[in-house]
Amino acid sequence: MPVRHADRPATKPQFSAAELRELHEKGTEILKHLESRGLYKPLGSYRAQPEDGKVTYGEGYPITAFEKFLGYWKKDANLAFSPSISMVTDFSVVRCFCRYVREPGRDKVFLDGESNERYDKRARKALDNFRSITGITGSFEFTIERVKRYDKAKGLGESAAVAAATARALIANVFGEDAAHDDIFVSRFARFASGSGTRSAAGGMSIWIAFPEIEESQSYACRLDVDTSNFHFAVFPDFHNIQTMDAHGIASSSPFYPTWVINKYDRILKLIKSGPKIEDLMRNAQEDMFFLRSLLTSGGVIIDTERSIKLINAVKSFQQSGGNIFMTADTGPSIVVMSTDEGELKRFIATQSAKPLYGKIPQSVNYSPDPKAAHTASAFLESLR
Amino acid sequence: MPVRHADRPATKPQFSAAELRELHEKGTEILKHLESRGLYKPLGSYRAQPEDGKVTYGEGYPITAFEKFLGYWKKDANLAFSPSISMVTDFSVVRCFCRYVREPGRDKVFLDGESNERYDKRARKALDNFRSITGITGSFEFTIERVKRYDKAKGLGESAAVAAATARALIANVFGEDAAHDDIFVSRFARFASGSGTRSAAGGMSIWIAFPEIEESQSYACRLDVDTSNFHFAVFPDFHNIQTMDAHGIASSSPFYPTWVINKYDRILKLIKSGPKIEDLMRNAQEDMFFLRSLLTSGGVIIDTERSIKLINAVKSFQQSGGNIFMTADTGPSIVVMSTDEGELKRFIATQSAKPLYGKIPQSVNYSPDPKAAHTASAFLESLR
Repeated sequence: MPVRHADRPATKPQFSAAELRELHEKGTEILKHLESRGLYKPLGSYRAQPEDGKVTYGEGYPITAFEKFLGYWKKDANLAFSPSISMVTDFSVVRCFCRYVREPGRDKVFLDGESNERYDKRARKALDNFRSITGITGSFEFTIERVKRYDKAKGLGESAAVAAATARALIANVFGEDAAHDDIFVSRFARFASGSGTRSAAGGMSIWIAFPEIEESQSYACRLDVDTSNFHFAVFPDFHNIQTMDAHGIASSSPFYPTWVINKYDRILKLIKSGPKIEDLMRNAQEDMFFLRSLLTSGGVIIDTERSIKLINAVKSFQQSGGNIFMTADTGPSIVVMSTDEGELKRFIATQSAKPLYGKIPQSVNYSPDPKAAHTASAFLESLR
Repeated sequence: MPVRHADRPATKPQFSAAELRELHEKGTEILKHLESRGLYKPLGSYRAQPEDGKVTYGEGYPITAFEKFLGYWKKDANLAFSPSISMVTDFSVVRCFCRYVREPGRDKVFLDGESNERYDKRARKALDNFRSITGITGSFEFTIERVKRYDKAKGLGESAAVAAATARALIANVFGEDAAHDDIFVSRFARFASGSGTRSAAGGMSIWIAFPEIEESQSYACRLDVDTSNFHFAVFPDFHNIQTMDAHGIASSSPFYPTWVINKYDRILKLIKSGPKIEDLMRNAQEDMFFLRSLLTSGGVIIDTERSIKLINAVKSFQQSGGNIFMTADTGPSIVVMSTDEGELKRFIATQSAKPLYGKIPQSVNYSPDPKAAHTASAFLESLR
């Protein structure tokens, strides 16, 4: 359980060969179009020069997705089945220090001061990919600190922030500061830690290029040229008690997954070709929020709470009476409300008893750490010897 | 809003001509198979002999669907896009008196003692279909009484009971008692009042035959030969505050609707061919419960409440730990739990603080009214002159 369609394999999405070819062609078309507009660029070339004991810094922001990502074409390299679009937000920030150790087999992650097996496992997989690409044989130790503006929430894109921060610290460590400033370069490696981390590393409003039969080295995110000067948003943080949820697996095994993926390519292609506008992105994000919930529900998983359902219905009522706002959400009950009209957004928020968190799209991460934090992290990592 | 896919018409499901042909062929195969097993039979032939002022009686039970129905191939004749399967339950019963009036334009419905415009409108549409088929020109007045074993709930199939009761009273009035005892004959006409009423009129566990390009006169329900002797069920009644919801319209305009329909034919065909078993029906019903919710969610409608989500998750946990029960639900948050093992069902129910209503599949409706109720109804209808 959940009960599955008898004739459908439980894990692999069912696309015909013709459909896979179509997705490859449309994915390539999206890539080429972004390339011709100077947004998608070839990967930079940097020399790996790891130094035993060197400690470096990286930051990452969480993401809120407009075109959501669910399901892998190739799980081992974290290659998604479709492109996806998101923005970074300042709802939290992740600060990471990375120390290189020449000795193999010593990868280790400390999350908010404590060792964490789940993160260790995730890091090992990502680092194994990194090592096989770069030829490096040593280990990496990370300290990760999450600074949140909210108390408890699901669906605020934190894991993207962790992936981006660790990838940036890692790239700074192995390839140096120039590489760490190259968002696209960092983005490719953030992908190994978390799909959505790929977009977080690119910053701003970005698209992650992925499709069936893409070369691994081509799959990274680049910023989109979207005017967000009149864009305003806020989130109502919420949480649920679903302990473990393999959202990617559940979505991929839905009979509705292929339709969702195929439609997503068409929507993204249309958006990119017409020059992406924030109004279209918001509309798509609201639609895709319900599609994502629909895919999970088809597998028996309902991620909403009484609070989020009430909020969703309130937004719909507000829209039905002409209110110019949109909403979106990821795989949790936290709901983001947004508008190109700040007054409208505030007018809606005033109707709610819960108080949301206003957000901004951060322009850039900090590339240098706070000196005191750097000293503490170095001392901590040194104490592990 | 809800926001829809830009490239997709909002009301008409998008099937290719080849898909429609396939559905017609598979629907015909289901019909032929049931016919060869002696379950689906040709419509009986009865002579219409309406008498001015005659009052007749009909009853109907609500339904719980195993293979749900959403979306019309032809809305004007209430012809569904796919076959559907349900059982009648004793969660409520509807009692209806019907009086024929020779004078045209006097159709009228009294629901629980009060006139009701929504029911008037619905009855007029159904009666117009009935008159165009039978050539009758007079009017029909109905009193409808709903006797519920619960207080307030959505998704318990009441409208099916109303349709079946009114259709039976109408058939008794125009075609006589023999016709009113012919479930299949009543079923065809119940369809004009409510799709699910088609199955309610057939009684027991029944299948309603409908598919693209079916003849109107072929679309009715017949009982299925399913052994339900070890089948036990109960419902947790619940309600939501969604005022009006066009579930058929929302589902039909989902990009996932065609896949849902196509899979449904395959599932029903497989079930019918192998000799339908209650275990398979229960498994399909649980799966289809989530598919139905998925279709509605894709259109922005979440029908669950905090209570129903908790209950759904409790059933899933019970199943994951090996408990032999299943659940299903229609377009409301009321959840039916069921099992072929009464002990297991009771063991699950004991884990819940809410107390459900145990149900039975009624063997038959009463064809004769309680004499006192008949007297009251006749006097009331007479008072309208």
